[in-house]
Amino acid sequence: MTKEGLLPAERLRNRFHLRNKYHAALCAELFGTFLLVFLVLGISCQHVLTGSKLVSFLSINIGVGFIVALSVYATYTTSGGQLNPAVSITLVFLGHISIKEFIGFVIVQTIGAFLGAAAGFAVYQDALNYFAGPLRTITGPNATAGIFCSFPAEHISNCTAFLDQVVGTAILLFFVCVFTDKRNNVPAFLHPLCFGFTLMLIGFTYGMNLGYPINPARDFGPRLFAVFAGYGWEVFTYHGCYFWIPIVAPLIGGPLGAFLYHTFIGAHAPDGVEEVKKVVLPSNGDESELLNNA
Amino acid sequence: MTKEGLLPAERLRNRFHLRNKYHAALCAELFGTFLLVFLVLGISCQHVLTGSKLVSFLSINIGVGFIVALSVYATYTTSGGQLNPAVSITLVFLGHISIKEFIGFVIVQTIGAFLGAAAGFAVYQDALNYFAGPLRTITGPNATAGIFCSFPAEHISNCTAFLDQVVGTAILLFFVCVFTDKRNNVPAFLHPLCFGFTLMLIGFTYGMNLGYPINPARDFGPRLFAVFAGYGWEVFTYHGCYFWIPIVAPLIGGPLGAFLYHTFIGAHAPDGVEEVKKVVLPSNGDESELLNNA
Amino acid sequence: MTKEGLLPAERLRNRFHLRNKYHAALCAELFGTFLLVFLVLGISCQHVLTGSKLVSFLSINIGVGFIVALSVYATYTTSGGQLNPAVSITLVFLGHISIKEFIGFVIVQTIGAFLGAAAGFAVYQDALNYFAGPLRTITGPNATAGIFCSFPAEHISNCTAFLDQVVGTAILLFFVCVFTDKRNNVPAFLHPLCFGFTLMLIGFTYGMNLGYPINPARDFGPRLFAVFAGYGWEVFTYHGCYFWIPIVAPLIGGPLGAFLYHTFIGAHAPDGVEEVKKVVLPSNGDESELLNNA
Amino acid sequence: MTKEGLLPAERLRNRFHLRNKYHAALCAELFGTFLLVFLVLGISCQHVLTGSKLVSFLSINIGVGFIVALSVYATYTTSGGQLNPAVSITLVFLGHISIKEFIGFVIVQTIGAFLGAAAGFAVYQDALNYFAGPLRTITGPNATAGIFCSFPAEHISNCTAFLDQVVGTAILLFFVCVFTDKRNNVPAFLHPLCFGFTLMLIGFTYGMNLGYPINPARDFGPRLFAVFAGYGWEVFTYHGCYFWIPIVAPLIGGPLGAFLYHTFIGAHAPDGVEEVKKVVLPSNGDESELLNNA
Repeated sequence: MTKEGLLPAERLRNRFHLRNKYHAALCAELFGTFLLVFLVLGISCQHVLTGSKLVSFLSINIGVGFIVALSVYATYTTSGGQLNPAVSITLVFLGHISIKEFIGFVIVQTIGAFLGAAAGFAVYQDALNYFAGPLRTITGPNATAGIFCSFPAEHISNCTAFLDQVVGTAILLFFVCVFTDKRNNVPAFLHPLCFGFTLMLIGFTYGMNLGYPINPARDFGPRLFAVFAGYGWEVFTYHGCYFWIPIVAPLIGGPLGAFLYHTFIGAHAPDGVEEVKKVVLPSNGDESELLNNA
Repeated sequence: MTKEGLLPAERLRNRFHLRNKYHAALCAELFGTFLLVFLVLGISCQHVLTGSKLVSFLSINIGVGFIVALSVYATYTTSGGQLNPAVSITLVFLGHISIKEFIGFVIVQTIGAFLGAAAGFAVYQDALNYFAGPLRTITGPNATAGIFCSFPAEHISNCTAFLDQVVGTAILLFFVCVFTDKRNNVPAFLHPLCFGFTLMLIGFTYGMNLGYPINPARDFGPRLFAVFAGYGWEVFTYHGCYFWIPIVAPLIGGPLGAFLYHTFIGAHAPDGVEEVKKVVLPSNGDESELLNNA
Repeated sequence: MTKEGLLPAERLRNRFHLRNKYHAALCAELFGTFLLVFLVLGISCQHVLTGSKLVSFLSINIGVGFIVALSVYATYTTSGGQLNPAVSITLVFLGHISIKEFIGFVIVQTIGAFLGAAAGFAVYQDALNYFAGPLRTITGPNATAGIFCSFPAEHISNCTAFLDQVVGTAILLFFVCVFTDKRNNVPAFLHPLCFGFTLMLIGFTYGMNLGYPINPARDFGPRLFAVFAGYGWEVFTYHGCYFWIPIVAPLIGGPLGAFLYHTFIGAHAPDGVEEVKKVVLPSNGDESELLNNA
Repeated sequence: MTKEGLLPAERLRNRFHLRNKYHAALCAELFGTFLLVFLVLGISCQHVLTGSKLVSFLSINIGVGFIVALSVYATYTTSGGQLNPAVSITLVFLGHISIKEFIGFVIVQTIGAFLGAAAGFAVYQDALNYFAGPLRTITGPNATAGIFCSFPAEHISNCTAFLDQVVGTAILLFFVCVFTDKRNNVPAFLHPLCFGFTLMLIGFTYGMNLGYPINPARDFGPRLFAVFAGYGWEVFTYHGCYFWIPIVAPLIGGPLGAFLYHTFIGAHAPDGVEEVKKVVLPSNGDESELLNNA
């Protein structure tokens, strides 16, 4: 019933397979970030172009959570599902990749994000023209620049914006460390889903000020595309040249979150299952076995 | 306490069991697509017949996700839970089934979808009459044709509609390939749930233009039923004979999504667990073991 | 650090443990149905007593799903987490329990439901008086009888109501059979969660007409309590003595759903993992291994 | 590609690792409760400071569920993820920790909660000033004290409030016992998620009266901070000195919930898998295997 030995997927693999693991990771990061931004742009369009009617803030929170979860599922075994320079720099901080590799990842992530914005723009052109006509503005009733990247409200100072981005990214990388710390025994097939839950959490708790970009590539790539899509360089100069904040702050917040986890909790986690069973909340009797994994 | 050896479920099995695997799969696809459309029609009725009050777009996204997840759970071991010609043609493209088998699947899927629409119509007849009286229209304040199949808004060109359907189905099959690629180590009992998450994702990101049918059988079967349910042949002629777009475009988008996954990511995924552990994001130390499955 | 050998939970167990498995199951069903209805009443109060502002239909769907999931988790190993005469009668139909056992289960389920309604009423008395004053009515702007049990809208005929309840319960038991059929390989620790997803599904798709009671004990027990809570016997006579429909229809729908699953799908599922791997959607190559469980 | 043997995370561990398990648990509880309250404060700010527009009661329920799930994931192996004096006292009641240990946990939990409130306040200062100007009030249109801790509506008597808190905490600890009882076979890596589902459940069902604090540290710590943040001591005297109710009632409700579970259900659960298979809902045939774990 099936053609043995030459299934198309295997043929594609034989033809395109990149043997160099770093090149394979670059390729996955390029496509993964493209996908991430393409999907995020879709949800932004559905939010902005219907005046929040179809897609509310709750929908955005849940939707972005699933976007991150699924994009990471797609790339987790090949590149670790970074898709975010803040994750990559934390991997440098934790000694898993080198600065040189980091730079390569950031470049492809940014290119992927730019292309993802372009692709999303293509699918929603009709709806954009229907909503805003020929106008391409950052503020006002028909503002649509928020589709591409973050713009703070008037009453948020750049100082608060910076703090907000440090905090948001710190929460993200804190929980990435929680889930990937093997002492916590969360099986790998659930990691991407848990990262998605973390994104939902950030949206629910610290997403109001700026819309939680917490990803330099995701914010800068589409912002650059927006210049060419008719919004002009104001997307960079707006609000006291705010644009650099979601680029720089996450690069500080990421390692900070990892540091906080490892210092306050990870460093004290028991080493193995046997050891755990004898401590604080023991498990003889019929309750509270801390580590009886599946 | 139980009657050994002759449990009713086993008796049914002995009586009806289809030994031919292809016939068994056809039977499961027929009933599974019936169920899928019956449930989708239910959620559409709750959306349309209450003026979006009970069931919002968010509810539709979540609900349709669960509908797909549960329908696939019901049929996954027997027929692979295709329930969609776009999935079936991708299985042809990937060499898992033949063209001849594909045609058989499409026929039963379409019959199932037609019958599912009829059954859903029966349960909601009272509510339909209460909402629209004797009117059966595609547009206007009491329009109810949207219960059965997709109709684009005026400002969406058929060109955009076609692109939209290619994109939506490509996303679907892209992630189906992600989850079923055994190199990604997602356990099979989670696959149907993950397919459901994918549907939610599509709804949140690229569902606005047309309501994401992305399934030729699901769109055509109920559309045909709508003709007999009082809407007439206008359901086919509406918007420049739009009806063929959600039939043809998904058949292109599906294989495209599979191709993109296998070319950009799948082809480069490491072959086995041992190999993975030594690459880009290694796992010695207390973090980031990529593949410590349950 | 802990007192070995005499942990309180074990002491309670030694003191109260029912050796007779049927008595243990009766006890679990009594408390489990109490809990189920106590929680469902809570969500109904939050819906009705705030004029749907706090808790919308979407919240009800999600909330009831979690209520069922968690109540079943509590009782799954002890009594199978039936909590519903429609489930119990399906177990009779499937040969797992006898008619005599069924009657015992129904009695304790109904008692549990009555007591659960009383307990929920106690917690929300202040809020009820604040919302409706001394009024206790089934219809009108301050109607609150819907907190306790289902009342159809005027335009729903009892005939449609009956069909609706058969359909809803059939969907429920259909999927209960899907998840518990060991040929489908869904691990037992996920069953209660999957039952919860099924309830969400029913709410999203066929919950509009009557509010999907689909549980004779859950509907009758609180209805009886409502008589004493000041609503009088009208809760039984309303809408052409509608009250018997959510009692009788689910007892038909449940076995029907099980029959449909086993006839159309279950009977044709492949027998074991090895067999599956060789059929319709095979798994050599890098995709689509149907049954590679965790 | 990686620097072997001296990964930063391991270096941090070697430097900070607390060998005394109780001290490690205290450290984790301090940081975990800080995190919990920091996140809860975030969601409260997004709710209150946008007039419920961004974050509705549904969003709060879902968000708080994820906050609890993720905070417990972070601390589960190190301290059991208590983060709540009501959980800690139940562990005393169940014989897992001593009174002396309990007192230590409560102190660090309260300090953590106080600091978490301070940190959340810092991030949302701009938005708070924008919403309420210099006003810091408990009632009225610009009331913001609800960001920090619970305040009952006028029509809720303190008697009902006490009952409400006993009930809410009893539900929480009832289900904590369900999930951690090893006879119920829920794998440990799902426990934190299941605790999160329990929180969602409580919000959906018994969250209306007071906003379900059900955690003495989470309510008292931020309340104390609110005094210094400009609200004055009225946060303690309001509504007949209500403040002690969410401190005392949960300490009763917690053990009550554990007692109810172990008396009515846990005591009667079958001892092992083999035993289960032979009782009430047996598993020969193709259905209803109660305990076929992954």
